[in-house]
Amino acid sequence: IAPATAVPDELRVEQTAIPGLLILRMPLHQDNRGWFKENWQRAKMTALGLPDFAPVQNNMSFNASAGATRGFHAEPWDKLVSVACGKILGAWVDLRAGETFGRVVTVEMGPQTAVYVPRGVGNGYQALADGTVYTYLVNEHWSAAAKNSYTFANLADPAIGVDWPIPPERSQRSEADLHHPPLAEVTPFAPPRT
Amino acid sequence: IAPATAVPDELRVEQTAIPGLLILRMPLHQDNRGWFKENWQRAKMTALGLPDFAPVQNNMSFNASAGATRGFHAEPWDKLVSVACGKILGAWVDLRAGETFGRVVTVEMGPQTAVYVPRGVGNGYQALADGTVYTYLVNEHWSAAAKNSYTFANLADPAIGVDWPIPPERSQRSEADLHHPPLAEVTPFAPPRT
Ligand SMILES: Cc1cn([C@H]2C[C@H](O)[C@@H](COP(=O)(O)OP(=O)(O)O[C@H]3O[C@@H](C)[C@H](O)[C@@H](O)[C@H]3O)O2)c(=O)[nH]c1=O
Ligand SMILES: Cc1cn([C@H]2C[C@H](O)[C@@H](COP(=O)(O)OP(=O)(O)O[C@H]3O[C@@H](C)[C@H](O)[C@@H](O)[C@H]3O)O2)c(=O)[nH]c1=O
Repeated sequence: IAPATAVPDELRVEQTAIPGLLILRMPLHQDNRGWFKENWQRAKMTALGLPDFAPVQNNMSFNASAGATRGFHAEPWDKLVSVACGKILGAWVDLRAGETFGRVVTVEMGPQTAVYVPRGVGNGYQALADGTVYTYLVNEHWSAAAKNSYTFANLADPAIGVDWPIPPERSQRSEADLHHPPLAEVTPFAPPRT
Repeated sequence: IAPATAVPDELRVEQTAIPGLLILRMPLHQDNRGWFKENWQRAKMTALGLPDFAPVQNNMSFNASAGATRGFHAEPWDKLVSVACGKILGAWVDLRAGETFGRVVTVEMGPQTAVYVPRGVGNGYQALADGTVYTYLVNEHWSAAAKNSYTFANLADPAIGVDWPIPPERSQRSEADLHHPPLAEVTPFAPPRT
């Protein structure tokens, strides 16, 4: 688990063990009202190595209780994920065909952290505070009809081995997330041939 | 004040008294974990009349206490503003040169509402719950250096006449927001000649 870090003075972008998975450490400008952040800033972030990923959708999910856990979902698009309120353990497993298949990264995230998740990397998180709102930008439109073609892995698979702070068995999960395959049964993600 | 409405089953886009200022009513998909929303969805929203505004920046502001009030700011770019957590009174005053100069719209907003604010319309809000997080997408990059060229109006100006639920005098405002001119002294916003 990468340690939770203090709020930085300047935006920083860090590499991780999963190629292309990037951690962004963001300043929070504090004042008498609260704080302000540039949660995505195309010019500054691309200058520091974030892909110019051209989002078309901004999603938010609200988690009523600490413990709510979602994942692992590897849709065929890229994501910039972050926290609006509360905190989470973010977790990722590389589901792309290749030698990094199965690699895991976890990061404790409050509002000062964002993570860029390239397509094919399974995305998951657990809310660590009641009322946590997770927010993300993606560069393709989701579709209910295409959902069957997306790549999933089971968030509780011991072979993936995420040490969720709250045991998933005692927390809120979607019906779909209960039934995703263990890593050993996942068909690796391969980008469509062009 | 437009009434707060229930969460709709389908995305709706409504016109307002300020030309180009649009209210979006969004479904919240509720389940055992909480809710999920498409806070911006380019294809669905442009089909319903939202401009294809091509955001480059996503900002968030956290308001520790109910009463924190911000505005009126009319920067030379368009905004899609919404609520991640908590609730607000959103308020807008048309600062564009022309016959709708000075028109005001207010909307009580929770997570199920977003508002599209065309450039030149002064944007403001008051947090109505502690811990409110306001989130917005804009299609130009903010710059500290250019701030002097932006158009502002005073949020407490009686001629604008917003009936803020919590009196601004008793709430948190930035130093800058205390000193913006009343409507009568605003130089109307005019797009740069091309
Ligand atoms: C992802 C998505 C879901 N929905 C609807 C379908 C359901 O009614 C409801 C909840 O969908 P679910 O797939 O259960 O949400 P979820 O929160 O479990 O799914 C998300 O989990 C994150 C970990 C991943 O990174 C995301 O990419 C996404 O897969 O929202 C949309 O309308 N648009 C969307 O883009
Ligand atoms: C707007 C902005 C501010 N900042 C910094 C400058 C300050 O240190 C801190 C707070 O800036 P302020 O201008 O005081 O934030 P603010 O919350 O008062 O300003 C906002 O008010 C909304 C009502 C408007 O719609 C927004 O467009 C914006 O003007 O954040 C950025 O780094 N990037 C930005 O894009």
